[in-house]
Formats: sequence, C-alpha cells, structure tokens
Amino acid sequence: MGSAQDNKGLLQRLDEGVVIGDGGFVFALEKRGYVKAGPWTPEACVENPGAVSQLHREFLRAGSDVMQAFTFYASDDKLANRGNEAGKKFTGRDINNAACKLAREVAEEGDCLVAGGLSQTPTYLSGKNKGEVQEEFRKQVKVFTENGVDFLICEYFEHVEEIVWAIEVCKEAKLPVAANMCIGPEGDLHHTSCGECAVKMVKAGADVVGVNCHFDPFVSLEAMKLMKKALDTEGLKAHLMCQPLAFLTPDAGKQGFIDLPEFPFALEPRICSRWDMHRFAREAYNLGIRYIGGCCGFEPYHIRAVAEELAEERGKKPIASVKHDMWGEGLRMHTKPWVRARARRSYWEKINPSSGRPYSASCSKPDNWGITAGSKELKQHSEGTTIEELQGVFSYIKA
Amino acid sequence: MGSAQDNKGLLQRLDEGVVIGDGGFVFALEKRGYVKAGPWTPEACVENPGAVSQLHREFLRAGSDVMQAFTFYASDDKLANRGNEAGKKFTGRDINNAACKLAREVAEEGDCLVAGGLSQTPTYLSGKNKGEVQEEFRKQVKVFTENGVDFLICEYFEHVEEIVWAIEVCKEAKLPVAANMCIGPEGDLHHTSCGECAVKMVKAGADVVGVNCHFDPFVSLEAMKLMKKALDTEGLKAHLMCQPLAFLTPDAGKQGFIDLPEFPFALEPRICSRWDMHRFAREAYNLGIRYIGGCCGFEPYHIRAVAEELAEERGKKPIASVKHDMWGEGLRMHTKPWVRARARRSYWEKINPSSGRPYSASCSKPDNWGITAGSKELKQHSEGTTIEELQGVFSYIKA
Amino acid sequence: MGSAQDNKGLLQRLDEGVVIGDGGFVFALEKRGYVKAGPWTPEACVENPGAVSQLHREFLRAGSDVMQAFTFYASDDKLANRGNEAGKKFTGRDINNAACKLAREVAEEGDCLVAGGLSQTPTYLSGKNKGEVQEEFRKQVKVFTENGVDFLICEYFEHVEEIVWAIEVCKEAKLPVAANMCIGPEGDLHHTSCGECAVKMVKAGADVVGVNCHFDPFVSLEAMKLMKKALDTEGLKAHLMCQPLAFLTPDAGKQGFIDLPEFPFALEPRICSRWDMHRFAREAYNLGIRYIGGCCGFEPYHIRAVAEELAEERGKKPIASVKHDMWGEGLRMHTKPWVRARARRSYWEKINPSSGRPYSASCSKPDNWGITAGSKELKQHSEGTTIEELQGVFSYIKA
Amino acid sequence: MGSAQDNKGLLQRLDEGVVIGDGGFVFALEKRGYVKAGPWTPEACVENPGAVSQLHREFLRAGSDVMQAFTFYASDDKLANRGNEAGKKFTGRDINNAACKLAREVAEEGDCLVAGGLSQTPTYLSGKNKGEVQEEFRKQVKVFTENGVDFLICEYFEHVEEIVWAIEVCKEAKLPVAANMCIGPEGDLHHTSCGECAVKMVKAGADVVGVNCHFDPFVSLEAMKLMKKALDTEGLKAHLMCQPLAFLTPDAGKQGFIDLPEFPFALEPRICSRWDMHRFAREAYNLGIRYIGGCCGFEPYHIRAVAEELAEERGKKPIASVKHDMWGEGLRMHTKPWVRARARRSYWEKINPSSGRPYSASCSKPDNWGITAGSKELKQHSEGTTIEELQGVFSYIKA
Repeated sequence: MGSAQDNKGLLQRLDEGVVIGDGGFVFALEKRGYVKAGPWTPEACVENPGAVSQLHREFLRAGSDVMQAFTFYASDDKLANRGNEAGKKFTGRDINNAACKLAREVAEEGDCLVAGGLSQTPTYLSGKNKGEVQEEFRKQVKVFTENGVDFLICEYFEHVEEIVWAIEVCKEAKLPVAANMCIGPEGDLHHTSCGECAVKMVKAGADVVGVNCHFDPFVSLEAMKLMKKALDTEGLKAHLMCQPLAFLTPDAGKQGFIDLPEFPFALEPRICSRWDMHRFAREAYNLGIRYIGGCCGFEPYHIRAVAEELAEERGKKPIASVKHDMWGEGLRMHTKPWVRARARRSYWEKINPSSGRPYSASCSKPDNWGITAGSKELKQHSEGTTIEELQGVFSYIKA
Repeated sequence: MGSAQDNKGLLQRLDEGVVIGDGGFVFALEKRGYVKAGPWTPEACVENPGAVSQLHREFLRAGSDVMQAFTFYASDDKLANRGNEAGKKFTGRDINNAACKLAREVAEEGDCLVAGGLSQTPTYLSGKNKGEVQEEFRKQVKVFTENGVDFLICEYFEHVEEIVWAIEVCKEAKLPVAANMCIGPEGDLHHTSCGECAVKMVKAGADVVGVNCHFDPFVSLEAMKLMKKALDTEGLKAHLMCQPLAFLTPDAGKQGFIDLPEFPFALEPRICSRWDMHRFAREAYNLGIRYIGGCCGFEPYHIRAVAEELAEERGKKPIASVKHDMWGEGLRMHTKPWVRARARRSYWEKINPSSGRPYSASCSKPDNWGITAGSKELKQHSEGTTIEELQGVFSYIKA
Repeated sequence: MGSAQDNKGLLQRLDEGVVIGDGGFVFALEKRGYVKAGPWTPEACVENPGAVSQLHREFLRAGSDVMQAFTFYASDDKLANRGNEAGKKFTGRDINNAACKLAREVAEEGDCLVAGGLSQTPTYLSGKNKGEVQEEFRKQVKVFTENGVDFLICEYFEHVEEIVWAIEVCKEAKLPVAANMCIGPEGDLHHTSCGECAVKMVKAGADVVGVNCHFDPFVSLEAMKLMKKALDTEGLKAHLMCQPLAFLTPDAGKQGFIDLPEFPFALEPRICSRWDMHRFAREAYNLGIRYIGGCCGFEPYHIRAVAEELAEERGKKPIASVKHDMWGEGLRMHTKPWVRARARRSYWEKINPSSGRPYSASCSKPDNWGITAGSKELKQHSEGTTIEELQGVFSYIKA
Repeated sequence: MGSAQDNKGLLQRLDEGVVIGDGGFVFALEKRGYVKAGPWTPEACVENPGAVSQLHREFLRAGSDVMQAFTFYASDDKLANRGNEAGKKFTGRDINNAACKLAREVAEEGDCLVAGGLSQTPTYLSGKNKGEVQEEFRKQVKVFTENGVDFLICEYFEHVEEIVWAIEVCKEAKLPVAANMCIGPEGDLHHTSCGECAVKMVKAGADVVGVNCHFDPFVSLEAMKLMKKALDTEGLKAHLMCQPLAFLTPDAGKQGFIDLPEFPFALEPRICSRWDMHRFAREAYNLGIRYIGGCCGFEPYHIRAVAEELAEERGKKPIASVKHDMWGEGLRMHTKPWVRARARRSYWEKINPSSGRPYSASCSKPDNWGITAGSKELKQHSEGTTIEELQGVFSYIKA
C-alpha cells in the first residue's frame, strides 16, 4: 500500500495555498442506495466497493485534494447500536480497512492525500469513561496507520471533551491532525463557546481546526469567525478548516439540522445551489480558511463550484470543469435562445430561486431538545428501538 | 450481445402489472461531472463508461425494470450544434452503440429490459423536411436494432408532428414503441391539445403513450388525464406511461421548466422529496398508468420511492430497500430520540418542508417565449453562440 | 328628505364616464368596534350613527360617487338568525330607515348618489319559496323608496335564482337596479356559469351587473370577463360593475374567501396595497367596467387609489388627495433621505412586499364544503349555535 | 377645561394594575384621508376635528385608558420642514391646543387620562444645540399645561441624548413623565445600548420608560427585557411601557421599519392580527410591563385585543367587546357551518396565516443607512426636496 510521500503533505499544502476537501458520503450514498439513513454507517465499503470508489472518483474530478476514507461512524460500538445489523456482519476493522484501500486507490488517479477519520461515539454519549472512549478511537487509528494514511481527521463531534480525547489518540500516530466539531456559533452541547472549543482543540494538538456538518455554509462561517478570533486572542497558531452542510439552515437551533423537522428525508428545498457554493468558497477564503470542503448534502458539483471559484488561487480548474463552463457559460449551446441568454455570471450570481411550494414556509420551528451526553435517551443499546420506547417519550405516537 | 428474449417483453409486462422506468441521466450525470449543461449530450457513454454503468446499476437496484440506453440527444445534428464539441470527437453511432452495450451489461445483472431512445432534433427545429428529420432517427434506430434492444422509446418531443415522424421510423424496426411528449396540460407548441397528441401518437403506431420531462409529477398527471380521456373517447387502446421531472413546477408556463428563471442551475428548492414520489406513484397507478418512471431530477432514491409505494402490486421490494426501511423506519436506529420519533409514515406523509430561504418566493414568473419549430432563433448552427447574437435578442446584456 | 334629482342619475353618469363606489362597511366598522363579526348586521346605523356617518364621509372624501346606505344583511330574518340579538332590539325597518337618512345626509356634503341595498337571505338558504323570499326583499325596498334613494343595489348573492327574485322586486320600484353576485370565475353555487348569471340578471331587468365580495380584484376581473363575453354573445346591453375584496385570494375555491382558514380574523397578510388598487382600477376600466368600487377590506385609502388612478378620466382628484400626493410623492417631505428616495411611481408600482412571516406559506388550503341553499346546516334558526351542533359536524371539537 | 383630578392619576393606576394606551393616529388617519404620509403632522386636529375625535372615541371604546392628544410631530420646526404646508397655515400652538381639547372632550366620555406628547425634532437632527432643541419642546409643554393634561409623554426619539433633553423640559411642568424611544434591541443611533438608554431616561426623571414604534411587538419586547435588566442591575425603579408597531418586522435593521423597502405604502402583509396582540399583551404583562398600548398600525381592534386578553386582570372588558365575543365566538352566528366551526380559541390561537402572495418573500433586505443626527442629509430645510437632491444621493433616479 503506497502513500503520498512523494507529494507534499497536508500542512505544507495548507501553508502554500488552498486544500479542497470532499463532500458528504453518507447522504450521497443514501440517495444512491448504499447507506441506510438512521444508523448512517459505512459498510458499503465492503458491500459495494464500486459505488464508494465511484463517488471518490467524482470528488477527485470535481477538485478534491483529499480522499477521505469512508470511515464515518465506523467504530465498533456504533456498528452495533440500536438494531444496526452492520455490526453483525462486519467488524470496525473490516470496514476501516476496506475504506482506506478504496480511498488510496482513487487518490492515486490524481495528486490526492488520503485521510482516515474518527467521529463521535455512542460510548461517549452513554456516559462511559475516557479510557473506554479512547479505546474505540485507538482501534480505528491503528487500521489507519497500517494503511499509511497521510493524515487524520476528527470530525462530527458535538462535545469538545470528546474531540480532545480523540485528538489525543490521533497524536499517538505522529500524523497531522485536523479536528472539526459539528457546532454553530452557539458552541458545543455542554455550553462551551465556539472560541473555547477551538482553543482546546489546538491545545490538545490539532494542526487544523474548524467545523463540519450540522449548519449551512454561512452559519458555519459565523462559527469560524468566533474560532479564529479566540485563537488570535490566545496567540495560538493553527490552520482553519470548514466542511459545512449543503443545506440552508438559518432557522436551526443549537443542534443544527438534525433538529429541523425536515431532517433527514425532506431537506430538498434547502439544498444549496452551485452559486451558493461560489459565495461560500470566496467568503471562506477571505476569512483565511485554507481547507475548504463539504459535508452532508455536498455533491460533486458543489465541490466543483468551490474549486472553480478558487481556480485562480489554485492555478488550475478541476478535471470535471471540462463538462462545466464557468458561471453557466455552457448554456450558450442550449437549443432555446432565452436559456442561452442565461449564460452569464451576473444572471446566476444574483438569482434568488423560488421553491415552487406555495404551501410551505421559509422557516421551520426546530425541535429543541436539551439532552446531551449521559442522558438515558442517548445511551447505546444494541437492540432496536421499540414502539414502547418511542411512546414513552412521545405519548401521541400510536402503535 | 444478448437480449431479454427469455424474459417477458414490455407489452406483456404492462398487461400483467407495473413497469418501473429509470430516472434522469443528463441531470444526474451533470451533477456528477460527466455531462455538460447546455448541449446535454451523452458522450459520457464513450468517455466515462464506468460512471454511466454505475448510474444504471443504481437505478436497477432502486427498482427500475428498464435500462434505457443513454442516447438522449445523440443524433448527429445535435452533437454538432452551437459549439458542442462532442460531435467533433464522436459520431452518433459511436455513442449510441456504446450506450446500448452499457445498458445491456447492467440489465443482465437483473431482470431488466433494454430500450433505445430517440428525442427531438435540431433538424426539425430548423424547419427541415420530414425526410431529413427521419433520416436522423433512422441512423439511431439502426444502431439500436443491431444491439438487440428490447423496445424503443421516443421521448422529449415538443411537437406532435415530429414525434409522429419518429414513431413511424421506429415501427420499421418491428419492436414495441413507447412515445412520450414533454408537454403539460396545455398541449404541444403548435397548439395541439394533449388529447389530440395522444390520439395521433397511437394512430401512428405507438404501443405506449404519455409524457416525460418539462413538468412536475402532479402537473404531468393532469396532462395524462387529458390523454387518457381522449383515447377513451376515440376508443383507442394503448398503455399509459409517465416519466416526469423531480422538480416542482406549479408556476411553469406552456414550455415547462426551461422557462423558469431557475433552469437549469438553481432548481434545488424545487426538488421533490421521496414522499412526493410515493404520492406520484400512487396517483399514477390509480389513474391506470402502468409504466411509471422519471426524467430530469429523478435520482435513484426517487425511483426507489416509486418502487416501494408499489411494492405490494409488484410483489417485491427493490434491491436498494435493504438500505431503506419503508416510510423512514430506519430512523429508529438514529442516535437522537427526537429523530427516532420521526420513524413513522404519518410523520413523513404529511410533512410540508420549509425552504430555509426567507428572501425567496414560492413561485417564479416564467419566461414565456412563443417561438417554435422554424423560428430563426431555433435553427441549428454548428458554431457557438456569440455575445452579439445574445445582444441582438437581449439588449441589456453587456459584453 | 331630499333626493339627487338635480344631479345626474346613475345611468347617465355611467353613460358619460366612471362612477366610483364605496368600500366595505362591515369589515371596516368591525375593526372600529361597531359591527360584530359572525352576524355582520348593520344595527350600528341606530346604535352609533356618528361612526357610520364618519365612514361615509371618509369614502366621499376618497372619491366615492355613491353613498350606499348601510343596509347589508338588514332583512328581518337575518337580524334574528342564530342568536343575533340585533333582531330583538330593532326591526329591519328601523335599521334600513336610519341607514338611508345617514347616507343621504353625507351625500349632500358632495355630489353623491344614494343607494339602498339588498343581499342574500336566510329565508332562501333555508329553502323557503319565492313568495317568502321576495316578501323579505319587499319590506326593505319599501323603506328605500320612502327615503327617496336614487337607485337600488342587489349584492352578495351566491345563487342566481335568488338575485333574480331580488331584481324582480326592485323593478317594482321603478328605479335603476345594479345587481352583483359574490361569485368568481367558477360561477354560482348551483353550477350556473358566470356568463349565464350575467345573462339572467340582465334579462330579469338589471341595468348594471357584475360581481362583489368573495374574491380579490384580479380574480373578480376574470369573472367579469366571462360575464362580459356572455352578454356580448347574447347581444345584451348592460353596464358593468365590480366591487371586489381588498384581500388577495388566488388560493380560494368556489366559495371565495369565507372558505379560507384565515376568514375572517387573520386575513391581514392578504390586504391589498394602494398600488394593487391602482392596477385594479386601470384593468377594470380597460375592460369596460364603469362602476368601480370595493367590498370587504376596502378602506378609504383603497378607494382613493382607485380615484387617483382614474383622475384623468374623471377630470378631478378626490378631496382626500389633498393629503396624498400621487404615487407616494409626499415622501419627499420625509425626514430620512432614503425614504425620500421612494417618492416615485417606478418604485411603488413594482414593489413586491414581504410578509415578515417566515413561518407562513403563500397559499392556504381552503375548506371546500359543497353545501348550498336548502342544506340543513344552512337553515335559519333564531337560537344560537350550540357546542353540540358544532360537534355533530366536527367530531374533533372539544367542549 | 377640566382635568382628571377626581380620577386616579397615571402612577397610581400603574401601581395598582394595567393601563392600556391607544393606537397609532398618523397611520390610521392617513388611511382615512386626514394625514399626509411623508410629513406625518397632525394638523387634522384643526382641519378635521370630527375625524380625530372619532378615532379617540374608537380607542376609548376599545379599552384605552389614555387619550393621547394628537400632537405627534407638532413642533414648529417640523411643521415647516421640507415643503410641509401645515406650518404655513397653523402654528404649533394652534395644533397642540386643538389636540388637547379634542382629547379631553372624548376622555370625559369615559374614565380616561389625557396626555400631551413630545417627539424628536428636526432641530436636533440638524445638529442644533441643547437650548434650541429644548425651546421647541418648551413651547409645546406650555400648551399642554395650560390645557391641564394629566401627564406627559416623550416618544419616538432615536437618540437618548435628545429624549433626556425632552424629559428635563417635561419635569419643569411637575407632571408625571413617560418616556419611550423608538429603538430595538440594538439600542439608539449613537450606539447607546437599550439598557443604558433606560438608565439615562430614569436618571433624567422619567417615571415610566420603554419603547414605542419602529419594531413589532415581539422585537420590542426583546428591547424591553434589556431595559428592565439594566434598571434592575442599577437598582433603579420605574414603571415599564411598550407601544410597538402593529407590523411584523423580524427583518428590520437598527432603524426599524422605516428601513424596510415596504415603508410606508406596502406594509399590509405585515399587519398583525388580533391574535398576535393577545400574545403581545400576555407576554408584556408577564414581563412586568404595566403601560401597554400601540403605535403605527395599531387600529382600535388591536387595542381591543389587548384589553380582552387582560380583561381578567383589569376586572372588565372594553366597551367595544359588546361587538366582539372573545376568541372569535361571535362566529357561532355565521351563516355557514364551517365558519361557525372556527368559533373557538384553539383555532385562532394557532393560526399561521397565508399571504396569498406567491411571488413575495418572507423577509426584506432593509436599507441600512448609517447616518444620524448632524448628517447633512437630515438637516431641516423648509423648502421641498428637489429631484436634483434625490439624484445626488441615488444616481439611478430619473427625472
């Protein structure tokens, strides 16, 4: 198994310019039929490797500099949680191992780095101790190092305490560590401010810090500003990273899009356009963020839009731009003249798209549960959720 | 090259039950980076066959009974129109041939039929005569028959005159013919009513008739009602077929979604949810439509929703339902209890999703150009569109 | 009691130019505290004559050429219906008589005509016969003629059969008769088309025909087009009249705004702006309508907008324009410069106002009850509605 | 000229319970045809006293405990500003004097207090000194005391410096002083926080403090919370007062509704329903506010809703409730059964009204000018604004 050792490493690339991340695997593969919404685990790496490779390849063509191994939620405790059958068929090791190999294989089709990723664990949510939680992380990191990944990502953590534990384990591997919490400007679920989260991650050893998932690009950049300001105030140095949702969430509460009533099966009207991503990429870059990618909802065309917006800074366009003239210019080849007339930046830059939904509102009232790690409702259990359990919480649910 | 001769053919399947079509290749592959918006031609069949196969496979897993060869707009005149470079690299024959082989290959992974498809031509829009138009069709049909497709589809025609010419050519091949116009309840662009279009298609020899593209599922079903009524009135027998957009278009005018200002790069807020597709499938079935599929915007998960809604009628669920418990039941495995509480049909069936876009309206005012076949603005030319041409039409466009 | 005999009568005025009607008394006086929503009866003429006079005066100043005596629903059967206490205190004669005197008194402050009005009766809705219904009308018309009104208006009828009976009674008084149904383009509640309603009203003797209430200005004009076309086809001559709502109702069904869930206490977001009324006045005029006024929701400033739009045709501005420079020009005197910048027609003509309601949709799903005259739920009864009655219809209502 | 000396005074009433204010005179009388939008001055007191009295009477019937003399913007400098002709016909003394007499006359029809009011001056906006500004106030206060008003209100001030000057002048009159700034949670236009504004007003001698105008009820209550908290922190005692807009303004910036593009002629979709006012009254009361009324957009029915919500606390319903059964119960007398079914609190309390405007958004992008007192664009000048002046600021304006 090769490594990107001939290439520049992550930190050198970030020092010299922009690194473009990839998009959201669980949401994209759910729509393609390979991931189950609910458990959201990545057994597709073993079950349908071709589908996973194809998505890697699309992101590579769209401009991603990083092939992030599809290891989201691939800890043993998550694979066996609440009726998920993945854990009966595969170990975390099986999946993490397959994921690394797929990522490397496609990475070698371009000039890409490979990253292994950790994410929050049911063990932590169940209130277990630091040793137990870190043991889950350590099992994954071992597979990542065996596979020679180029760096490690801790992402999708709602509690800074847990991500600090994850970073500590990653540091044992002597690889660069990027750390992202899935928080917005209100901070983590234990009332830690955004700024304080950033400071703690850097102090724990993260080389790159930021946010991913849970909020839209523009809400996420508000959180990034707070992180940046706190790091500056503390005189701490770290690269900044942002991999937000591709769903608009101005109405989300502290816990982000999972609290919106539309999550996860009716988020369509919130999907960002490619033009939203141009704006995101520019604003992120101007803010000093150098690792720019996406999370749930980000499809290859969203990443391509990021790469096209930053084409000048990067000195190149992504491969997939061969099928996408900038700012809609390809429409000059459309059959109808009024569509050809839309082939210009000023048209798309300003468009405010209608929803075609006259019975729908602009905003939702999110669920706003206050429970966090340790609450009994969050405890891991391997059997499925029963109707009785649901009724215990929501008396209006009928069998 | 095999054929589905051991299997039941299209018409027998339609007599006995439901046939599920596939979704929209040009839009899906545009987002994946393999098709250019504007020309919308399918050279990906030659350039990136793996990406095309993967999409076929996803539709197969989602429940499609038909692998429709990706031959949309693959006529020689379209490949060379208005600056499209595809025509310089490949002939229509190259692409049609590759498309058929890819479709058959995946079809054999399941119990699927393969179809070859014709669509409207720049030759017709340029006002050329019947002989010239039919010659374009004949070249494609020849490749289809050489490849042993199971049936032929004429689709995306805006003028009933042209689709009748296409059907006539298809009939020469002695294969079943399905014919779809991209019209809504207002009828074709030459003021022919929906009902009259259906009658003409059947009289020309189509075995299956209906609409595809240009309008959302529910507007399309209004058009289908008009077609059905006219056929009943005339005492004509034909199977009904509907492959609409997966974008909501209550505000579109006669020419459908291409007139909406959001077409094609800001349609995101209009994307149908899987629950919209459950409703579409049920309403289509109740109306007597037996060939039910999708066009632009339909992703594999939309087709899966159609197949899940009709699981009882079909006596089976699609393969990809292994990763999708019905009506969101998979959410019982979610980490958070309030998301688990959404694991029920009554929740998703009634959801009215918000857009997260407080500055956007519900409806758009469509462009409503009246030009049709023969207008100079529609004439084929092989060179690209110039700024001067655009300015001739829209004086407000600046260089 | 004087009369407008020195002035030109209604028909002469309509022959020569435009007649501007007044606005909606029941809705305006409900908001001012003098009319009860539910029964909607006009006992304020006796109880609070000053408040009624003031509203007449405001419409006169706004440009109304007609002081319509506030006799809406002032038939004896309506005053005593379903718990309405007005009927215990006053007879229909008391109220109609007071209403005529108030209207005349203010009319003489300008060059206005006075009209007495009839509207639909509980007697008809209860399925009583023609003689009984006409007897209710005859009692009112007698008071109108004693008071020397200049003409009669039949308005707010949902069934053409009943308005024809009303017209017949009015014709006995040898006064001009204007007849308006509260219907939209779908016609009356007995499936009579708009056009047929117009024809029947003219054949019954109406000099002026049209629609009032129940739909917004633009939906109402669609109904007017159908009426006009039918009269033209039949070769019938009549003046046209339109007094619509000042609430936007694109989503209302056949029975208009009373079916909308917001009726009558949450219609605020639908209120038309003065600029909507400019457009209404111009479109009505261009359609050949010469009696242009308003119904529920029309406040004095809406009528002033109609009069200002037609100032050139009428050769004068309304009195109240002394406090309203055309097209917002008065804003030049505002303190803030950016508000002064809005002092121009091009700004207000194109404004598309936001709702400030991010949780609200654009359209409502109306109740669509199919019951009409004769149904038991519509029968008059003098006692109030009980909870049990409501529960009989809506099982979900709790005591 | 009598006074309310037999009655309880303002402060005693506030100590013992709730005082309900009145609604917005300039907006209500603009729609009735007696006030010009732009200058917004109250010369109607002299020109059309009957119209002013009628509006007082409607508020009295709706539950107002205070007849606020209609003296808004009745300072000599404002009457002569930017082309306003009111100043050529009347002095400030004429108008203030007439206003006091009209208010007292109607107050005596009930148990009401009379207040005289001061508001911000062009003199201050023009950067004149304290002496000059206070001289404008002193002229008005002199007329108020001659007329024996019961207390004084300073309202609609955007700068705390100016309202402090106004309070100082009011204190010379030895009457209770209520002071309201037209600010939201962001504070005054000179960057003074809400809390600091409250503290300064109380320290200057105000007995009652709060906010009026510029923001909707719920945004205004956010500002009130900040004021209350600051007073508590400082250990200062004062009664709290809130008289907000009846227009929803979640999207307004620091300067409130005048920055919204809809101001002042297209605000209709934002008008609060009576049910919004029930909620406002309850939330204000729970927050400890005891002087609760309204400003622009508040019509008599909005004040009635406040009084009905607080009927139990006040031990009485307003007079006008004789025409308004609580929570829509009067609908039991409606003709149609499905409207009768809406006669219940649970229906109206939860209604989320649609706008009937499918082309409109929920939110507006406000103008956000940063200019404040002293800027040249704000300077008083007596001549009207010229097109050239407007073009100097907005180059896109055409003559």
